[in-house]
Amino acid sequence: MAVLALDASADNLTYSFGGHEPRLHASPGDVIVVDTEDCFGGAVRTVDDLPSQVCAFPYLNPVTGPIFVAGAEVGDTLAVHFAEIAPVRDYCFSSTFPHFGALTTTHQTAMLHDALPELVWRYDIDVARGVAVFHARQGDFALELPLDPMHGTVGVAPAADEVIMSITPGAHGGNMDTPELRAGTTVYFGVNVPGALLALGDGHCRQGEGETCGTGLEAAMRTTIIVDVLKGVETPWPRLESDEFLMSTGSVRPLEDAFRISQHDLVGWTGTLTGLSQLDAMQVVSQAGLAPVGNVVDTNYTMVAKLPKAVLGPGVSAYGGMHARMRAAAAHYLAAR
Amino acid sequence: MAVLALDASADNLTYSFGGHEPRLHASPGDVIVVDTEDCFGGAVRTVDDLPSQVCAFPYLNPVTGPIFVAGAEVGDTLAVHFAEIAPVRDYCFSSTFPHFGALTTTHQTAMLHDALPELVWRYDIDVARGVAVFHARQGDFALELPLDPMHGTVGVAPAADEVIMSITPGAHGGNMDTPELRAGTTVYFGVNVPGALLALGDGHCRQGEGETCGTGLEAAMRTTIIVDVLKGVETPWPRLESDEFLMSTGSVRPLEDAFRISQHDLVGWTGTLTGLSQLDAMQVVSQAGLAPVGNVVDTNYTMVAKLPKAVLGPGVSAYGGMHARMRAAAAHYLAAR
Amino acid sequence: MAVLALDASADNLTYSFGGHEPRLHASPGDVIVVDTEDCFGGAVRTVDDLPSQVCAFPYLNPVTGPIFVAGAEVGDTLAVHFAEIAPVRDYCFSSTFPHFGALTTTHQTAMLHDALPELVWRYDIDVARGVAVFHARQGDFALELPLDPMHGTVGVAPAADEVIMSITPGAHGGNMDTPELRAGTTVYFGVNVPGALLALGDGHCRQGEGETCGTGLEAAMRTTIIVDVLKGVETPWPRLESDEFLMSTGSVRPLEDAFRISQHDLVGWTGTLTGLSQLDAMQVVSQAGLAPVGNVVDTNYTMVAKLPKAVLGPGVSAYGGMHARMRAAAAHYLAAR
Amino acid sequence: MAVLALDASADNLTYSFGGHEPRLHASPGDVIVVDTEDCFGGAVRTVDDLPSQVCAFPYLNPVTGPIFVAGAEVGDTLAVHFAEIAPVRDYCFSSTFPHFGALTTTHQTAMLHDALPELVWRYDIDVARGVAVFHARQGDFALELPLDPMHGTVGVAPAADEVIMSITPGAHGGNMDTPELRAGTTVYFGVNVPGALLALGDGHCRQGEGETCGTGLEAAMRTTIIVDVLKGVETPWPRLESDEFLMSTGSVRPLEDAFRISQHDLVGWTGTLTGLSQLDAMQVVSQAGLAPVGNVVDTNYTMVAKLPKAVLGPGVSAYGGMHARMRAAAAHYLAAR
Repeated sequence: MAVLALDASADNLTYSFGGHEPRLHASPGDVIVVDTEDCFGGAVRTVDDLPSQVCAFPYLNPVTGPIFVAGAEVGDTLAVHFAEIAPVRDYCFSSTFPHFGALTTTHQTAMLHDALPELVWRYDIDVARGVAVFHARQGDFALELPLDPMHGTVGVAPAADEVIMSITPGAHGGNMDTPELRAGTTVYFGVNVPGALLALGDGHCRQGEGETCGTGLEAAMRTTIIVDVLKGVETPWPRLESDEFLMSTGSVRPLEDAFRISQHDLVGWTGTLTGLSQLDAMQVVSQAGLAPVGNVVDTNYTMVAKLPKAVLGPGVSAYGGMHARMRAAAAHYLAAR
Repeated sequence: MAVLALDASADNLTYSFGGHEPRLHASPGDVIVVDTEDCFGGAVRTVDDLPSQVCAFPYLNPVTGPIFVAGAEVGDTLAVHFAEIAPVRDYCFSSTFPHFGALTTTHQTAMLHDALPELVWRYDIDVARGVAVFHARQGDFALELPLDPMHGTVGVAPAADEVIMSITPGAHGGNMDTPELRAGTTVYFGVNVPGALLALGDGHCRQGEGETCGTGLEAAMRTTIIVDVLKGVETPWPRLESDEFLMSTGSVRPLEDAFRISQHDLVGWTGTLTGLSQLDAMQVVSQAGLAPVGNVVDTNYTMVAKLPKAVLGPGVSAYGGMHARMRAAAAHYLAAR
Repeated sequence: MAVLALDASADNLTYSFGGHEPRLHASPGDVIVVDTEDCFGGAVRTVDDLPSQVCAFPYLNPVTGPIFVAGAEVGDTLAVHFAEIAPVRDYCFSSTFPHFGALTTTHQTAMLHDALPELVWRYDIDVARGVAVFHARQGDFALELPLDPMHGTVGVAPAADEVIMSITPGAHGGNMDTPELRAGTTVYFGVNVPGALLALGDGHCRQGEGETCGTGLEAAMRTTIIVDVLKGVETPWPRLESDEFLMSTGSVRPLEDAFRISQHDLVGWTGTLTGLSQLDAMQVVSQAGLAPVGNVVDTNYTMVAKLPKAVLGPGVSAYGGMHARMRAAAAHYLAAR
Repeated sequence: MAVLALDASADNLTYSFGGHEPRLHASPGDVIVVDTEDCFGGAVRTVDDLPSQVCAFPYLNPVTGPIFVAGAEVGDTLAVHFAEIAPVRDYCFSSTFPHFGALTTTHQTAMLHDALPELVWRYDIDVARGVAVFHARQGDFALELPLDPMHGTVGVAPAADEVIMSITPGAHGGNMDTPELRAGTTVYFGVNVPGALLALGDGHCRQGEGETCGTGLEAAMRTTIIVDVLKGVETPWPRLESDEFLMSTGSVRPLEDAFRISQHDLVGWTGTLTGLSQLDAMQVVSQAGLAPVGNVVDTNYTMVAKLPKAVLGPGVSAYGGMHARMRAAAAHYLAAR
């Protein structure tokens, strides 16, 4: 096990999944400290920096990477454990963006309305107290929200040699924008190319489910991950595992199809883990599952299907206990650091 | 304040919202003990009773009512507080149903596949231990799920003199099938006809978010509610309030439009309560909100948008503090019972 | 065979399908001259009459009827042949309407935009030349469009005792808003209640496919229909037949489900008529079918699936040759009039 | 003007838009004879060759190209006129494919059903009589369909350096699968990279609107195109022009958003050509437009919005008369050939 680092210098920032040479080579079990920029590439520094003016399409939503993981081959699964996600600065930004968001006309949901106003919010981050402070842009209203750092965008190179913008979520991961992707969580991706070519970015100090306005509390992060490979194990859509939940994702439109993909995968996963028939597994997921929205703003929408691990009992373990092992390794590393 | 009762005799069961004479007259502040049948009308008694054979369309999903609430007029809001939802029997049933569910061809998502097999599950209910016991239909697998009783269907007579089947959720409420509708929650409906004409049914001992297989743990319930009226207050889509959350609902297809309705309503509600501008309110909801699915199986799909009340601080109170008052009245009634 | 008439007096105008006493009793084979008002109830008389001001919800989109057709019972099919659709006035109106249309935020596709401007267009109708004249509201631009009179709304009482606003299309017909519903066409509806309870309205001097702005060339019509009953023949979704095409409809959201319903029905219909297996019938529909949009603005969206009758050859006849017989009867009546 | 050729040898077949070196360099005004393989890569030769067995993902739906067109730069429009589309063989194939099609569970509309049976149909092509002959796979039924050759897939390299599988339609064109793409039609694409990098394939001897079963009459074609460049003219979504119609396309999910994109573009285009205000232009499109489905089976769905050019009068000409000039050049070339 090595401890590696990948900084957020311009050379290490890419804007798509697929099509890039590795910026780092890692091996299974390695700890990697990855620095990531915010979705604006750090160009928004005050509330007067409008993203549509200071950012240049398609150079939005940079991800750091890709990282080549030795031994990861087509048909394997890459496991990525998030040990720590730490905001780099003591402030961060959110914004609206013209033709982007769930409650506005977009380039896809095309209407004759003018765009909603573009507005930027600056949040003060108080890591010690664990809060981000919101200030209304109109009026004096302020309130505090708990910090809950996460990554909006994590993924691997897609199948079929596709190169997909980092703002798009899909079967390869990408911009899933779910708050479930916090520290303590392991993410599993199917490997489509040798080395998997992992990249991540788009840290949020927190976001609501749905990311309705189009952005979270966008922040540069110093993030510690551990990577590993499950040989000969296929994972068709990204899955997450925390201490409490098994989670399947689906990212597509319309939203009910994202729901269907995530539920279908969780039913299949539950059946595989328990030996239950397909209909019995659907029954368990139907009665015990949670179904929070990830995002309804990106080029694909994301749904998460969650099953409490407690429901299945202590004898059931996913991916051969990978999450527990990575969790322990992360704790060990963080304690020794 | 009176304590009234409405039993689940055949005369009190209806199958639509709208089009029915009141079965009970109540006044604001009244406690009403309402008995409800399960969605099968009690016709499923063993796992060999297939719903498609023992139930006759359109006599599915009976609701008890309607209840005329004195003083409720068009333009007002009806508040319904759920004090208690108690399973009547020590067992309940779930099932698949041909052409119904999120992971099957339906009459709307029409495909050339044969229907999935129709299968019934019997759950044993242990109220003392607070669990329902699942037994797989194939193999010996069993597991326990926590009881979390709720009503899938609660609503009032629709606008425009419509008569809508009880299985359809919409702006009038109806078959929203969200687990948020549990005891301790207050539901607010816009009033469309004199007396509002409240009805409820479709109790579930629990259900997952999404109700993927098409049914929850379908159970007859003895449910205690308190009703009240907010004069001159409009509520365009059903809202829920618990001790912890403000919740807006949207029920329509596709699922992203249900999401939009619920988020749009919660943004407006938040703005009204706080004085925030529309964009500031959207920012707060985007960062602090939760967005669980209700159902993706009914004739309309339901989304819930939730905002923790703690975010807005103690000074912000919805509907003039109605929930807190009803909560106290419920506690008083239950303690004195 | 009798010739009956039903005028558009206030007593004969209803605003929903279901829930009304018959305004006329007819028998199979009868000719009925039905007068219908425009969707504004005639209240828009100049371009300064804004619909949202001169019309009062829910009194929009009046239909004339219902008409009880003797002998029509649950499980039968009602055939309605449109012999003639004639504009009553020498002008008609189209308009935008706040929160209504395909390219605007609506109450379902809820966004934070203000409504688009409400604007009314007056078209001059020249029946002799067969044209309607458009005048731009801004600038001097004018152009002529061919008259192609049709009814946006035709249907029967729904199943399950539902009462559905006339602006909603569904399995009972209703506001399908397809230009295919012109003179020379026969429409088939499944019968849900004794007498079927047919009603029609919402005439358009023409409309484009999709009815994007939300309205067509809205006009009062004098329309001549012939009605008949097919005993023991079920029709799950409205079907249309012209001299050239068999057509199935689907009305639901999202639009792809409306497409699926219409295609699924046309595949089944083609199989029944030809004896082809389901997959062979799908192959024929896939290669020879047309799929124009009806509307993408109403509470449900409508798709039409069309198959040229020539493809199936002269030996194939739908509904026992009903269309040809009604077509001949209509020609006879119109010639003798 | 040169006459160039690009054959369908393996070296000239690619499986994505973007990411490939040019196979041919052409100049504005050049005639190019392009040979294309069918979507199966020619691997289906009898009805016993099941596509899922003889084709290997992702090597499906080959396109011939890309072709670098000199002078085409970012911000320009590439015009591609289809002079002739001629089937190469006297037979062609259609098929179902597991988890592909509008009336089956797919990887996106994920359900628990087994895939529909995979079945192949062989059509005999009689170019002289202009027909394709269908033979039922079950029973003796046969029928003739008119030939109407077209290309399902035509496009340019995408923006943002994306590489997108050839089976996906989008703003760059790709697998739009609309029967409107026949000989006599000019297609306009926005240019995203120097040279535009045009590629085409997926010829169909005909297809229905919607391509419900997932394939058309899949055929290798010898296709003659003319290419040209409009400098400084942007085209956000592919547009088509025939002698009779202006056509805008939208390719996205859900289908109503594809409809919105196509209608929004056609409204804007109409406004630009006529000087009409946005609302006046929407009014014209709403009343005079056609809206046929392209496909409801690919990774994005495609809608076409059509406006008869006759409606706008002879004084209105798109893209500076490019279509008429290319049409004349094509006629001249074909006559002189």
